[in-house]
Amino acid sequence: MLAELTVVPLDKAEEGFSRYVAQCVRLIRESGLDYVLTPMSTIVEGDAEAVFDLVKKVHLHIAAQSARVSTTVHIDDRRGRSGCLKGKVESVRRLLDGGEDH
Amino acid sequence: MLAELTVVPLDKAEEGFSRYVAQCVRLIRESGLDYVLTPMSTIVEGDAEAVFDLVKKVHLHIAAQSARVSTTVHIDDRRGRSGCLKGKVESVRRLLDGGEDH
Amino acid sequence: MLAELTVVPLDKAEEGFSRYVAQCVRLIRESGLDYVLTPMSTIVEGDAEAVFDLVKKVHLHIAAQSARVSTTVHIDDRRGRSGCLKGKVESVRRLLDGGEDH
Amino acid sequence: MLAELTVVPLDKAEEGFSRYVAQCVRLIRESGLDYVLTPMSTIVEGDAEAVFDLVKKVHLHIAAQSARVSTTVHIDDRRGRSGCLKGKVESVRRLLDGGEDH
Repeated sequence: MLAELTVVPLDKAEEGFSRYVAQCVRLIRESGLDYVLTPMSTIVEGDAEAVFDLVKKVHLHIAAQSARVSTTVHIDDRRGRSGCLKGKVESVRRLLDGGEDH
Repeated sequence: MLAELTVVPLDKAEEGFSRYVAQCVRLIRESGLDYVLTPMSTIVEGDAEAVFDLVKKVHLHIAAQSARVSTTVHIDDRRGRSGCLKGKVESVRRLLDGGEDH
Repeated sequence: MLAELTVVPLDKAEEGFSRYVAQCVRLIRESGLDYVLTPMSTIVEGDAEAVFDLVKKVHLHIAAQSARVSTTVHIDDRRGRSGCLKGKVESVRRLLDGGEDH
Repeated sequence: MLAELTVVPLDKAEEGFSRYVAQCVRLIRESGLDYVLTPMSTIVEGDAEAVFDLVKKVHLHIAAQSARVSTTVHIDDRRGRSGCLKGKVESVRRLLDGGEDH
């Protein structure tokens, strides 16, 4: 499954969130799951068990440092599919390059 | 923490999603956590451990019946707070009734 | 269409967000659209033109008071449907009361 | 502001959504706004007026082809900031490379 993860320690807005995003990325790297960092989130790919474990771990890590955390997880779980982290973007690009279907 | 949960089995759009939302609500009831059903989601309140367990259970229950599931979880985790399921709406209503602060 | 709206002035976390939610609700009331206030959001129902206008208005109203605003809008647009603000919850409740389909 | 946009024509799950994502990307390109395509969304950057116009246009374009569309928009609006599409990822990468702050 793909899971898009955004963890925001709301009481840290003044210092900015980059430091906390970097902490999340380090935990994701340690998990060994594939991931992509975007301007709005981090997207990970893995099996359900590993992804749910990671989401909980990352949330609790930030919550331990913050009085109020807003975490958003958006999952796209396609049975039997893997390689979606690259595959989804590539299949859109192929259509765009092909010029089809406006 | 509060967690807003939306689980959508994308391949069931034609029959409608009510049946699957009802399944989610039954699992939430069995968990014993407080919840509110809204037109767009179900919102549960509980400690982190119980909420993450429930989210995973509900997602997997629907994923077992569907080729592609889109699940969104939005968490608001305020350290040391409980009773937010009622409290957040009430504190807004008090401000509205007071007529303050336009 | 239904639109679930959450507008968070991130730099106001310390004072709490209720005051800003109340401002959003007042703008929604002035729009005349039906709405429901939940512990995580406000959900409005209306035609596309009215809803998009309102979302923009509410976002800009809060952004004028804040250095950084996080706004989330989730739309469920079913062609030709209205009354979904009540109808969606009721159809789930009917299934739950009927005891079907676990 | 940054706006992350996901438009899902729910009744097209069987054929897949790539074709519709490609349509969205074409409309974004025509708008002239900077954008990034991710595995879960498209993220655009621009001023509020241009971004809200685009979001509405993209939603209506897909809604015209579908019986039920789920659209999610997540906005990060920082007063006076631009260049966030690249800047946010770069500032996290700098922290990661620096090895600080675990």
